[in-house]
Amino acid sequence: MTKEIAVLGAGSWGSVLASVLDENGSHVRLWSYNEKQVAQFNETHTNPKYIKNYTFSESITAYHDLAAAIDGVDYILFVVPTQVTRSVARQVAAILKDRNHSVNIIHASKGIEEKTYLRLSQVLSEEIDPENRQSISVLSGPSQAEDVVTHDITLVTVASDNQRAASEIQDLFMNNYFRVYTSDDVIGVEFGAALKNIIALGAGALYGLGYKDNAKAALMTRGLAEISRLGTSFGANPLTFIGLSGVGDIIVTATSTNSRNWRAGNELGRGESLEAVIKNMGMVIEGVATTRAAYELSKKRGVEMPITSAIYHVLYDGADIKETINQLMTREGRSEIG
Amino acid sequence: MTKEIAVLGAGSWGSVLASVLDENGSHVRLWSYNEKQVAQFNETHTNPKYIKNYTFSESITAYHDLAAAIDGVDYILFVVPTQVTRSVARQVAAILKDRNHSVNIIHASKGIEEKTYLRLSQVLSEEIDPENRQSISVLSGPSQAEDVVTHDITLVTVASDNQRAASEIQDLFMNNYFRVYTSDDVIGVEFGAALKNIIALGAGALYGLGYKDNAKAALMTRGLAEISRLGTSFGANPLTFIGLSGVGDIIVTATSTNSRNWRAGNELGRGESLEAVIKNMGMVIEGVATTRAAYELSKKRGVEMPITSAIYHVLYDGADIKETINQLMTREGRSEIG
Repeated sequence: MTKEIAVLGAGSWGSVLASVLDENGSHVRLWSYNEKQVAQFNETHTNPKYIKNYTFSESITAYHDLAAAIDGVDYILFVVPTQVTRSVARQVAAILKDRNHSVNIIHASKGIEEKTYLRLSQVLSEEIDPENRQSISVLSGPSQAEDVVTHDITLVTVASDNQRAASEIQDLFMNNYFRVYTSDDVIGVEFGAALKNIIALGAGALYGLGYKDNAKAALMTRGLAEISRLGTSFGANPLTFIGLSGVGDIIVTATSTNSRNWRAGNELGRGESLEAVIKNMGMVIEGVATTRAAYELSKKRGVEMPITSAIYHVLYDGADIKETINQLMTREGRSEIG
Repeated sequence: MTKEIAVLGAGSWGSVLASVLDENGSHVRLWSYNEKQVAQFNETHTNPKYIKNYTFSESITAYHDLAAAIDGVDYILFVVPTQVTRSVARQVAAILKDRNHSVNIIHASKGIEEKTYLRLSQVLSEEIDPENRQSISVLSGPSQAEDVVTHDITLVTVASDNQRAASEIQDLFMNNYFRVYTSDDVIGVEFGAALKNIIALGAGALYGLGYKDNAKAALMTRGLAEISRLGTSFGANPLTFIGLSGVGDIIVTATSTNSRNWRAGNELGRGESLEAVIKNMGMVIEGVATTRAAYELSKKRGVEMPITSAIYHVLYDGADIKETINQLMTREGRSEIG
């Protein structure tokens, strides 16, 4: 039976996920807060600011009116930026409540909410009344959006509080270039997705300092170990971090010189100040806020995160980057696992 | 107390490990079967076939006489090629037995013995009498030898059947650019080290076929999952595969276009036959034999290894590579963790 799906957020990942769902036979509505983008999409079936040289299917309709976009849908997929997820969810919640309408919620954003340090499924469950949602799921994995439209092989995980929903979502997205695995570990998948940007920053910084592949692999591996420790302290399955939303996403993010976080780290490694880097980049460097969130969470939970702490002190306390690395390398020897 | 250490095998990794040990204050003897290489090393303190533009410390002495090399040592570090480990171990065993001499054994080679499908610590324990060895340990991790001599940050794991020995070995190797973690999971560390070359072959093949970063990350992640399943079926700790000898080594090997296995895979992906690739490379492509070993072991243990099986059928049964990928991608959906 054809599903009705609203995709909220028409950035690169949202519009590409809309395209995969449409291609697989769902009815897809793509919502954006940007009226001009919506008009352009419906006229030309393109989204050139986010996905270049690609024409979307005419069967995807873009919406600027949120109530119309989610009217009667089976699924709502949130792909808006992390820090606006709560405000969009609040609007969605009011509409659903008003109509006494219950849907399946998915999100595919990566981050931790500032100040509250909540994962996005927690934000969504706080805002949307339990009577108006059947499930909350998260879709994540190593997935550069621009390569999905050219049918690069892409594997992602959908983790859910409801395994029947997870299987349905798997079916909605799967095809011969996009493969979906199910998981019941929402916490682990969200932590992996969010915290990988810390490693991308660090990998860029090591490169900027002149370190090579051994150092990069070391940082990624030990960074993953401490992300896993933090996630596990919140109830995540440690094996999730060996998976697509853990190591898989870290591989794509921390080895790609296209990653915004990697590039910011690289400039820091070359000796630029954080202020200069933020100014040069001209856009949000998510890893900077994520580092603070992970640092604060690690203190609260009493979890040792030496790499995150080191990056935090370089970013926020003006610690010298070379001296910080030397301190990391000259700590007492220890065992690899826990 | 200064330790006497014999390093057997003067290839790139053996000679570099000898250098790290020497720098940290041990007395190091470097053994090679190649008399000319030994003479050149002792005259010029260089090993140009393996490590270019580097002068070794004059305090490292090279030996061609195995009995002299291991006379009275505290440690013997095997870094000879996988397939000759047994024959060298047999010679070492005879000398130790004759002298009633007991040592700590370490190896830093990566592979599975052909035909027997044994890990190298098993080969060493079969050959060397328990009365002549105090411990068997394996040192492994993401470590391109040529970057260690320029002091790239390098992190490795030493796994041992004897945790006191593991701690001593950690102390012998550790300094401010070379950091060692201990582990009690010899099985996991050896499986990770050996099987990564299958992933490197596969990553090269995907690149040769024109696939991009999502596909690479997907292969590495799901490849790691099946290596972990196989290792776990033999008693490995699944968390070892999230570590330095697992994901860490896979990152270095499968993302480096310098890797011999990656290059062989790339040529296969471009449509070359296995015979042509082996001929072009002019040297052993370890991943080809390792794929067979892992395939046979997975059949014996009843462990599902879809990626390894696919690569096996392409290498040994003439399966079409694109059709094989399509079969992998169109399997029924499943959950991510076991």
